[in-house]
Amino acid sequence: MSKVLRWGIVGCGDISHDFVRAMNHSQRPNKVIAVAASKKERAEAFRGKTNLSNDVKAYGSYDELFADKEVDVVYIGVVNNLHIDVSLKAVKAGKAVLCEKPIGANVKETKKLFDAAEQAKVFLMEATWSRFFPAYQRLRQIINDKSLGKVKTASVLFAGKLPANRFCVELNQTPINDIGSYAVQFALFAFGERPEKVVFDGGKREDGCDLWGTFNLHFSGGRFAVVSYSSDDYGPSNGVVTFDDGYVEFPKQFWSPDTLKLVKGTNEPVLEKFPLPEYEGYNYGNSAGLSYEADHVYDTIAAGKTQSDIHSHDESLKTLEILDEARRVLGVKYTVD
Amino acid sequence: MSKVLRWGIVGCGDISHDFVRAMNHSQRPNKVIAVAASKKERAEAFRGKTNLSNDVKAYGSYDELFADKEVDVVYIGVVNNLHIDVSLKAVKAGKAVLCEKPIGANVKETKKLFDAAEQAKVFLMEATWSRFFPAYQRLRQIINDKSLGKVKTASVLFAGKLPANRFCVELNQTPINDIGSYAVQFALFAFGERPEKVVFDGGKREDGCDLWGTFNLHFSGGRFAVVSYSSDDYGPSNGVVTFDDGYVEFPKQFWSPDTLKLVKGTNEPVLEKFPLPEYEGYNYGNSAGLSYEADHVYDTIAAGKTQSDIHSHDESLKTLEILDEARRVLGVKYTVD
Repeated sequence: MSKVLRWGIVGCGDISHDFVRAMNHSQRPNKVIAVAASKKERAEAFRGKTNLSNDVKAYGSYDELFADKEVDVVYIGVVNNLHIDVSLKAVKAGKAVLCEKPIGANVKETKKLFDAAEQAKVFLMEATWSRFFPAYQRLRQIINDKSLGKVKTASVLFAGKLPANRFCVELNQTPINDIGSYAVQFALFAFGERPEKVVFDGGKREDGCDLWGTFNLHFSGGRFAVVSYSSDDYGPSNGVVTFDDGYVEFPKQFWSPDTLKLVKGTNEPVLEKFPLPEYEGYNYGNSAGLSYEADHVYDTIAAGKTQSDIHSHDESLKTLEILDEARRVLGVKYTVD
Repeated sequence: MSKVLRWGIVGCGDISHDFVRAMNHSQRPNKVIAVAASKKERAEAFRGKTNLSNDVKAYGSYDELFADKEVDVVYIGVVNNLHIDVSLKAVKAGKAVLCEKPIGANVKETKKLFDAAEQAKVFLMEATWSRFFPAYQRLRQIINDKSLGKVKTASVLFAGKLPANRFCVELNQTPINDIGSYAVQFALFAFGERPEKVVFDGGKREDGCDLWGTFNLHFSGGRFAVVSYSSDDYGPSNGVVTFDDGYVEFPKQFWSPDTLKLVKGTNEPVLEKFPLPEYEGYNYGNSAGLSYEADHVYDTIAAGKTQSDIHSHDESLKTLEILDEARRVLGVKYTVD
């Protein structure tokens, strides 16, 4: 298939910058044809900053971009608390949508969006970019071919020093949906099923924001995952999946890995490398990997599907169900709850 | 001080073998002068297997060794469910005692032993060998000098494929006190205080043995540890302590590490190596490190102390309190409860 997929970029912040830049490494005929910010000057400045040509349209409102008939799919990189409303507008305008994570702050608002997308019969996916990294696909292969036997556990501690503006209950933005969601999706990816039971424990600050959390996810056959996040420190953030006969580790940055460590039984580890096309010049670590996600969107839309077979609506909801329950236990209430 | 510390080895199994062998690397004047098994032939065979000279006395009962006035200190490496009774006999005979872990199956029986040792005014320590590794001492230094700021979290998943004979409720021997105890002591070492709250979650088998467990330990100032064990798989078993300004990792075998990874903020990791005197010829991994423990016993006894300042009686009890509570939650009942 040779048809170009024409992208509109909505929101001109750091993550949109990285997405546009990563698109240079896309293996599919993806093309950015428009960008939109709340002010036209911002959109124009963003176009310059990301080295997009002046042929790329710069819009001063999201609605103008949604009205552009040439745009096939929009990438939504606006601030988290606007994800739902902006995505809903895009869907209603008939656009395919890739919306940054977390796509919604809770199950309730996210389901409404998913329903709207299904009704409009448009592609919609939460941008859980981790899952499209070649290292994740390799892990999926090892799980499926059972070369290490059955998955027994998944574990990760995602420790990061989050800036002050990422702690804001009023904007439905606290560490649990920011970095906790990465830990949870990792476990769900490893097991590929809904947990039978979730046990959550965590701690919060005086201002009502969560500070850390641990999710024990009980899966079928007495198997479990223990995934945690901590938001005021530094950590290695390696992710591990153990099996009957060995284990697989993403030795660093489990959410965007370029290396997979494979260990059979007590043998020496074998490192498999999946180097990124480039590392420098991005706002966030390993952002060049956003190209894998863009390629997956291309393939899914090209196949005429409205949901990803790697990160479906139900996959997003599985994570949110767990986060909602955890926040209930901890007493972290969002405005949209 | 030049006085030789004269050791008696009680129990002639795999761990005693490793201890005697490691003693060759002791930096202090430690000397094995007697070994005891339940049969004299076994003790003699053990003496041969461990290359001890024929001058070393071989006893066919533990009592004979305890009656030997030349023995200053006994190393107790008998099967777990005999630790308490055999240690008690040694203490009552006035011997200093280093008893393999877990020293007791629960707080109740262990307290009785500790009381007896205090009454007899003899040295007694649980052989939590991890804590005497140079890498642990280096971690302690980093914690104390606050070069990375305050400890924020500790985490580990100790995943190991345990043989069938390590699952036996009737012998008070299940994975939780076998490998779970290592995970818990790691967190306690990092924080150096009693947790304010313990939240446990785990799973067990149909025969009543625990299979896995996660301990969330809440420490002062809203800080936490999440340490887990899993007993039917393989895992990397790295241990991590995160700080305000960086983190420290034992990249493998957190319970007997020869390497420490130090990371300041987002800098590149610095590896510090603490190689063991030898690696081969032992029943268990990194067993040469048992020599560090033997040297610590020497130093403590030479200083006229009856308790270690690194692993005191209270340190053992702290771990056992947590394991007891966890077993209660999970419904894993030992005969001595």
